[in-house]
Amino acid sequence: MKTDTIAAIATAMADSGIGIIRISGEEAIEIADRMFRTRSGRRILREVTSHTINYGYIVDNFGEEKIVVDEVGLNANRVVDEVMVSVMKSPCSYTTEDTVEINCHGGVLMMNRILELAVKNGARIAEPGEFTKRAFLNGRIDLSRAEAVIDIIHSKNQFALESSVSQLKGSVSEAVQKLRQELIYEIAFIESALDDPEHISLEGYGEKLSEKTENIISRLKKLLDSSDNGKMLKEGISTVIVGKPNAGKSSLLNILVGEEKAIVTDIAGTTRDVLEESIRLHGISLNIIDTAGIRYTEDVVEKIGVERARKYASLADLIVFVVDASLPLDESDYDIIRMISGKKVIVLLNKTDLDEVVTESILTDEMNAMDASHIRVIKTSTKENVGIDLLEQAIKDMFFQGEISFNDEVFITNMRHKEAIMNAYESMLQVRSSLENDMPEDFYSIDLMSSYSSLGTIIGEEVGEDLVNEIFSKFCMGK
Amino acid sequence: MKTDTIAAIATAMADSGIGIIRISGEEAIEIADRMFRTRSGRRILREVTSHTINYGYIVDNFGEEKIVVDEVGLNANRVVDEVMVSVMKSPCSYTTEDTVEINCHGGVLMMNRILELAVKNGARIAEPGEFTKRAFLNGRIDLSRAEAVIDIIHSKNQFALESSVSQLKGSVSEAVQKLRQELIYEIAFIESALDDPEHISLEGYGEKLSEKTENIISRLKKLLDSSDNGKMLKEGISTVIVGKPNAGKSSLLNILVGEEKAIVTDIAGTTRDVLEESIRLHGISLNIIDTAGIRYTEDVVEKIGVERARKYASLADLIVFVVDASLPLDESDYDIIRMISGKKVIVLLNKTDLDEVVTESILTDEMNAMDASHIRVIKTSTKENVGIDLLEQAIKDMFFQGEISFNDEVFITNMRHKEAIMNAYESMLQVRSSLENDMPEDFYSIDLMSSYSSLGTIIGEEVGEDLVNEIFSKFCMGK
Repeated sequence: MKTDTIAAIATAMADSGIGIIRISGEEAIEIADRMFRTRSGRRILREVTSHTINYGYIVDNFGEEKIVVDEVGLNANRVVDEVMVSVMKSPCSYTTEDTVEINCHGGVLMMNRILELAVKNGARIAEPGEFTKRAFLNGRIDLSRAEAVIDIIHSKNQFALESSVSQLKGSVSEAVQKLRQELIYEIAFIESALDDPEHISLEGYGEKLSEKTENIISRLKKLLDSSDNGKMLKEGISTVIVGKPNAGKSSLLNILVGEEKAIVTDIAGTTRDVLEESIRLHGISLNIIDTAGIRYTEDVVEKIGVERARKYASLADLIVFVVDASLPLDESDYDIIRMISGKKVIVLLNKTDLDEVVTESILTDEMNAMDASHIRVIKTSTKENVGIDLLEQAIKDMFFQGEISFNDEVFITNMRHKEAIMNAYESMLQVRSSLENDMPEDFYSIDLMSSYSSLGTIIGEEVGEDLVNEIFSKFCMGK
Repeated sequence: MKTDTIAAIATAMADSGIGIIRISGEEAIEIADRMFRTRSGRRILREVTSHTINYGYIVDNFGEEKIVVDEVGLNANRVVDEVMVSVMKSPCSYTTEDTVEINCHGGVLMMNRILELAVKNGARIAEPGEFTKRAFLNGRIDLSRAEAVIDIIHSKNQFALESSVSQLKGSVSEAVQKLRQELIYEIAFIESALDDPEHISLEGYGEKLSEKTENIISRLKKLLDSSDNGKMLKEGISTVIVGKPNAGKSSLLNILVGEEKAIVTDIAGTTRDVLEESIRLHGISLNIIDTAGIRYTEDVVEKIGVERARKYASLADLIVFVVDASLPLDESDYDIIRMISGKKVIVLLNKTDLDEVVTESILTDEMNAMDASHIRVIKTSTKENVGIDLLEQAIKDMFFQGEISFNDEVFITNMRHKEAIMNAYESMLQVRSSLENDMPEDFYSIDLMSSYSSLGTIIGEEVGEDLVNEIFSKFCMGK
């Protein structure tokens, strides 16, 4: 079946040095050839070798039989831009189709002009993600790798970037494919035995499958667990700073924002009084919500504020509790301690530049109802910028067990993948239960198959056109 | 002399499909080679042919002796991105130096990561415009062509774009070089004659030079004249809409903005009450200033408004005077007519949907003091969207004598070039005056030389380092 030849601007739509118009499809080279001339006016693109870069001009000769060549090389009236054109022939291209990339001067007007010309000459404007979609549909990359492409582009921090690159290279695909291979082996064995009970015996197989099932369950569990880290890697650690007024919350935020040369964006919160800022702290994204100072109050309005803080705290990955260590703990602090019970908490005993009233042991006593493994205590002076490096280290330790390495570990960062793994996991729990209850083989055969299918959706097998379209519609233009 | 190898992100700094990191200089290929591996882990860039595109991975192996290769091709920990790398060897590149372009995934974080890596491996971050500056310093393009590059990128409309492309191809350079050639011929002849009066006679030469001088003066004049059009092409036609309250000014603006699918930007005016909008009308940029309704008044505050409108009107390229044709002309209209005297004016007899009170002849009588060639009268109904196409045509006719063609005509769009041509022109007027006054030959020889030098600055001869630096500092990064 003949597919459309598609074209799009692949670089950002802002004035810059270089812009790229990408054309892909059966007629890509023919279309580019109509638009491109060398300095001496020749058409050469149909003859050039694949993976070459060709210098010349984009010409607008629409409606003309032939190009007019004058003594300076080209008729000035027809020249649109001076360009470099890359030709990549099928199947060695991004889409596996014939692909041409026109590197032009990166003005918005110019990029649009050349894209229009490509359309005039027979291309259709590509939908968002259509190039990558073709790479997937044509079998060059599976769905999880295709999804990694857009994650790379929108990466918020270094770890997310590395995780996505690792996925593009196939880390998730490989883990999933290994699991599926093992599953299909068992399914095939059961089916064969059921079909041909005379030659293949299921005697003692239950035990073997049980072992395999436990193994697969634990691997799926590990992937599921990684998705919590994965989500934080991708979207940042949702961090709420709490503390009574004047404990040093704002100074802390200022230090984090200012001194770490962080990238800060103001995200308009859904709630008027809560400011959310995104900070990149040595590769880790922190989405910091600075709550208004919380104090013990009978005032109705202030109670709403406390409720709000409580809500944010309950949703946070991490609470940074700033304590003014120069004053005794008061009702406000106790209120906060009750509020953050059960969460991952880093307590900053702040104002170490002043006399220490609240010591680490006092504080630990007060918080002894809470799971100690979820609490770190750090002494800081936001005034004198002391201890902030320890805070950073504590976050890393708490969330990523030290250095994050993408060498061995696979991180699930995509929520669609997580859901599929969850489904596969639940099917395997069914298998376990069927085995424990000595159910007949075709019972757990169905669940094994369902687990196999769920995992298949990650790499794009057994997914419908609608889902594929939905996934790629989130891509940017020209990718 | 060995020059630095420079690197920069050449695409816009926004998340998009593809990003380009450009590296240029003696060590460009060596630096890229350190960063690039094929899927099988090989270093190949030093061996590849010029103008080829190479598929592989950017790796961060800084500090490592050799790259670790694992069974999936590359050690996952070291892979930064999957890329296409273009190699263009000296002298066939943009800068004429060895140049490498790394096409990576177009995320901001990714582009920065790879740029950092290029720096780690020995490149220096390029200054704005440094690639084009090198193209100029290395003699590939002259200064006027280099300046056209940035004009192309920042083109506001189709005509400006075409004019800049024409300049990039050398239209201005050629015109200037032709003039300089003719000037240097005359200078050389005079110098030779003065050196060797026995063999070379200046008898009758004055007449010949006088003819040549008139010819050059008229050509320079034509270039100067083109700069008015050139400025408008590049920056848009500065248009002021005037008219008394309720004449239909705002409706006109809305039609222009809305129906022409125009690109509209609100430029915060220096003056509180004046809104400036930039509209692209079929290839022509109009910078429209909509003045508050002007009416005859003794009120001090309102007088300030009138003064302000007068000031804008006096600076405008075009006045659009909206008259409510359903009401007799009143003092406000007369005030406006006095105000716009001597300018290029398009009068809209608006509200043709109502009974016509002000006819074209009535209006023409009132405006008879003004130069008729500067006035067009068009009947419109902004309410019913009638006559707007005529307005557009009138603007084209008035400013560009119909269709604009860059085929024959050279447009001066750069103010630096205009100044240089103005200097050359004035020197030639000196030559004319010396000839008329029968001054000795060395008198006008100096002025010929000065004219020659002035023109030289356009193409970058006889310009100081400071000026070159200043010109390229206006470029964007990566160009």
